[in-house]
Amino acid sequence: MTQSREVRLKSRPNGMPTNDNFEICEVDVADPGPGQVLVRNHYMSVDPYMRGRMYDRKSYVPPFQVGAPLDGGAVGEVIASNSDAMPVGTFVQNGFGWREAFVAEPRQLQPVDPEVAPLSAYLGVLGMPGMTAYVGLFRAASLKDGETVFVSGAAGAVGSLAGQIAKIKGCRVLGSAGSDEKVRHLTDDLGFDYAFNYREGDLLARLREGAPDGLDVYFDNIGADHLEAALFHMRQFGRIALCGAIAVYNDASPRPGPSNLTMAIGMGLRLQGFIVSHYNDSRDDFIRDVSGWIAEGKVKYDETILDGIDQAPAAFEGLFTGRNVGKMLVKLI
Amino acid sequence: MTQSREVRLKSRPNGMPTNDNFEICEVDVADPGPGQVLVRNHYMSVDPYMRGRMYDRKSYVPPFQVGAPLDGGAVGEVIASNSDAMPVGTFVQNGFGWREAFVAEPRQLQPVDPEVAPLSAYLGVLGMPGMTAYVGLFRAASLKDGETVFVSGAAGAVGSLAGQIAKIKGCRVLGSAGSDEKVRHLTDDLGFDYAFNYREGDLLARLREGAPDGLDVYFDNIGADHLEAALFHMRQFGRIALCGAIAVYNDASPRPGPSNLTMAIGMGLRLQGFIVSHYNDSRDDFIRDVSGWIAEGKVKYDETILDGIDQAPAAFEGLFTGRNVGKMLVKLI
Repeated sequence: MTQSREVRLKSRPNGMPTNDNFEICEVDVADPGPGQVLVRNHYMSVDPYMRGRMYDRKSYVPPFQVGAPLDGGAVGEVIASNSDAMPVGTFVQNGFGWREAFVAEPRQLQPVDPEVAPLSAYLGVLGMPGMTAYVGLFRAASLKDGETVFVSGAAGAVGSLAGQIAKIKGCRVLGSAGSDEKVRHLTDDLGFDYAFNYREGDLLARLREGAPDGLDVYFDNIGADHLEAALFHMRQFGRIALCGAIAVYNDASPRPGPSNLTMAIGMGLRLQGFIVSHYNDSRDDFIRDVSGWIAEGKVKYDETILDGIDQAPAAFEGLFTGRNVGKMLVKLI
Repeated sequence: MTQSREVRLKSRPNGMPTNDNFEICEVDVADPGPGQVLVRNHYMSVDPYMRGRMYDRKSYVPPFQVGAPLDGGAVGEVIASNSDAMPVGTFVQNGFGWREAFVAEPRQLQPVDPEVAPLSAYLGVLGMPGMTAYVGLFRAASLKDGETVFVSGAAGAVGSLAGQIAKIKGCRVLGSAGSDEKVRHLTDDLGFDYAFNYREGDLLARLREGAPDGLDVYFDNIGADHLEAALFHMRQFGRIALCGAIAVYNDASPRPGPSNLTMAIGMGLRLQGFIVSHYNDSRDDFIRDVSGWIAEGKVKYDETILDGIDQAPAAFEGLFTGRNVGKMLVKLI
């Protein structure tokens, strides 16, 4: 038997999540049964999409249940094994986040190689957020070399990779972020051609300044006023990848959509909603390309790491206040 | 010299257009110069998109000018010719609507054959609205055989053909229209599987009744509440062809968009805006398929014809009050 702590949903957030919506519990994890393994997580992921699962509604993933542990991406190490296929010492990516240790079947776990990349990278640039950036650009937005691309929330885990990939493809890349420090990071460290602080000034004016000839692609992580401003500035046959809408995830009631969506008609715009699993067939391409670019030094990635499972609620809340640069993670060991 | 009447934009409409926004003027049309022809129009078209050109704003077609004649689709006959290529008696589709007669170069005119279809059909089922339906389904919405399709404004020139084409492709087809009489026409005469009056009851409830398993394709001619209801009822990977938004064309100020656009993310929905000219390379396919279907009796088309150019403003206004079944036309001769 192993001691573990886990984070449970204590109550459904109304608006912005707070510490009161979560509780951290000590639990006993049973020894692994026949064919099973015991895993101790090293890192867990907090991601904006998890906010949607805190509502009690039908969606593409089932809602979290009040009183039950949350789940999500994590990476850990097998510390006891009844499976020849997955011996002690195997590092595994898994869906049992928000907890320190757990028992699972090997088929629920994906071995990863810590020699290829640090464990934490499998939750970010080489994991779900990284693949989201990759398929969002190439599949949802049908990116072509040399186009003009705007990425909102560009300092986040998804946006920062999306912008860098677009640069690799010879694009002019604009990014928005929520602080002057992040804006400088985008231009000075990540190679964005133009970046601006979306908390200041007029979004459309900034887009016009950064892309006088308009946008071919908009990679939308924010929604709301960002989407409306981008629609006003798209070029004919432009494509918008609807990836996220972090601006509205905490809205207590539905917010009106962009008032200029009809512009899509005359301009021939495409808006393509997606989540990463819609494009699972791009997984091999993603791993090959992005690991290659990391090895060549063409892609950088940032992590904001909070320490200890008791910091998990704060890490999650920080996604909505802009506390993270790059991937937000919680270190569990 | 030939006498002609033409309709001019007297003032820009504020909200719903009225007779006061138009004036009808007598003009002298000069004799055709070298290489030119004189055309007398038989029919002129009024189309919802013309409302957009009455605003003074940048769009995909230049705005109409106050004091100048309007223009748009028409079909007429060459009554005087200085061109061997286009002798007297040639019937021509042209962009010189809203007037009885005009002089033009042959390259501005498209000969049509009144033996293949009545002249008026070249402004409807075999013209711009027909091709809009065709490319909207096959190109913008990537229609597949046997899918479930919802067409709004289904009794109009575009919608009625879109629905019939989808039926030919083995689809289950739902349509909305603005009167009980039109609804009966859709189901009893045009073969729609389910139709409803959008002025009564709850749109989403009707969609759920008509398509319990959801919609694969939504062909949007109306926008606004229709688009929002359809978004709520799309199946995963559904496609929405954004063709028109007649509900908002007369809005004096921008109207908020659908509050549920973020559903596109998890459901992987595509919204594709288009106008017919974006898909001009489908013209031959369109003519071949639709004339074939008409000849086989698989496609029916309706026309609502007002008589005389002085009725042109009323015909145009009637588009927004639902006066037409099928294509709205003005007979000029």
